Amino acid sequence: MNTQQLAVALVSGGLDSMVAAALVRERGYRLLALSVDYNQRHRIELAAAERVAAALGAERHVVLPLDLSRFGGSALTGVTPVPKDGVGRGIPVTYVPARNTIFLSLALGWAEAAGARDLVIGVNALDYSGYPDCRPEFVAAFEGLAELATKAGVEGAAFHVHAPLQHLTKADIVREGARLGLEMGLSWSCYDPTPDELHCGLCDSCRLRAKGFGEAGVPDPTRYAAQP
Amino acid sequence: MNTQQLAVALVSGGLDSMVAAALVRERGYRLLALSVDYNQRHRIELAAAERVAAALGAERHVVLPLDLSRFGGSALTGVTPVPKDGVGRGIPVTYVPARNTIFLSLALGWAEAAGARDLVIGVNALDYSGYPDCRPEFVAAFEGLAELATKAGVEGAAFHVHAPLQHLTKADIVREGARLGLEMGLSWSCYDPTPDELHCGLCDSCRLRAKGFGEAGVPDPTRYAAQP
Repeated sequence: MNTQQLAVALVSGGLDSMVAAALVRERGYRLLALSVDYNQRHRIELAAAERVAAALGAERHVVLPLDLSRFGGSALTGVTPVPKDGVGRGIPVTYVPARNTIFLSLALGWAEAAGARDLVIGVNALDYSGYPDCRPEFVAAFEGLAELATKAGVEGAAFHVHAPLQHLTKADIVREGARLGLEMGLSWSCYDPTPDELHCGLCDSCRLRAKGFGEAGVPDPTRYAAQP
Repeated sequence: MNTQQLAVALVSGGLDSMVAAALVRERGYRLLALSVDYNQRHRIELAAAERVAAALGAERHVVLPLDLSRFGGSALTGVTPVPKDGVGRGIPVTYVPARNTIFLSLALGWAEAAGARDLVIGVNALDYSGYPDCRPEFVAAFEGLAELATKAGVEGAAFHVHAPLQHLTKADIVREGARLGLEMGLSWSCYDPTPDELHCGLCDSCRLRAKGFGEAGVPDPTRYAAQP
């Protein structure tokens, strides 16, 4: 019997969640991988999530359908165009209302059912300049809520949300991925894939990805339709 | 244009959420009703939720499929029998890991997308003797998290979780329903409906419902298969 502790890792198919989960695996955890099919326009990331979960050796991978487009309010689930004119300031239109709260809640539900006490999320310094639910104070508040919210918490267990990228830049994340020997080309970042399934190269997410590889001095395995 | 404030009410189809939403409507709110099809064995409650949302005059009713049985861990979504031997002490096997955290997160996502700042949940004194995610401290912690988690929160909005039944017993809830003139027979409580769609009369939820009507001295419109 494998007595290592289990952790439920949110795996979007993107580079950040791949590296975050790999860092927690390196700390000795067994992984359960959770992806959410929330009717994101870049649903191609779910195919990447399958590849990433397999490459990480996750013991189980659940892709949970949850149609957040029913609520509206985001360029990522609606018809508002994804911006292509460079990374701006403030909270982007690609913000999905309460997304990380919803995703961590789902991870918490699975963790409690599976006897796990550890969750993994790939939020990082870049994200939380833009997305409120990526900030360290959000992650800490969720840990507090988890203890009040669960049977396990009432019985004395503490849940820990691992956010190992929290203070890393994209270049740091790429460096960590390289150090861990990850096949980073399996991951998917683009918000607005081309019909022939290339990264567009122009959305915020493509620009940040390309910049991260560039600054880290690591060869970028990504095929971009336009040069970021 | 209707300038009343909008509130997103979690409407399960049960009596508690019906009365909770009606109390918030009485305070002057317009309602958006949210139900979750989480593969609960008592899916019949979703038909009740449709009736209840219509009776409450909800402006929109979303029934969101979210298959929590993928995670396991509860008699309400699995094959563990629902207990029939009376209301016990401690956290019941019908506890669904992190359910209210997940449901409130979804309500928060819809609220933010719709410009609403108010959520409604029907937790009450009876529930929180058994379910950790029905306690006042859980509800308060969720309000704090909502502020950190959202764009609206960062911009200064406060979210309020209305839990107007929090300190009410089932008899109090029935009395409130009667005072508000609600057609309480539209609601559904049973965890383990009979094949001909009657309340079983023996599960915890049926027993508490029948007891509530009895103690309130209000005629019980429910058709039970066995006398609770």
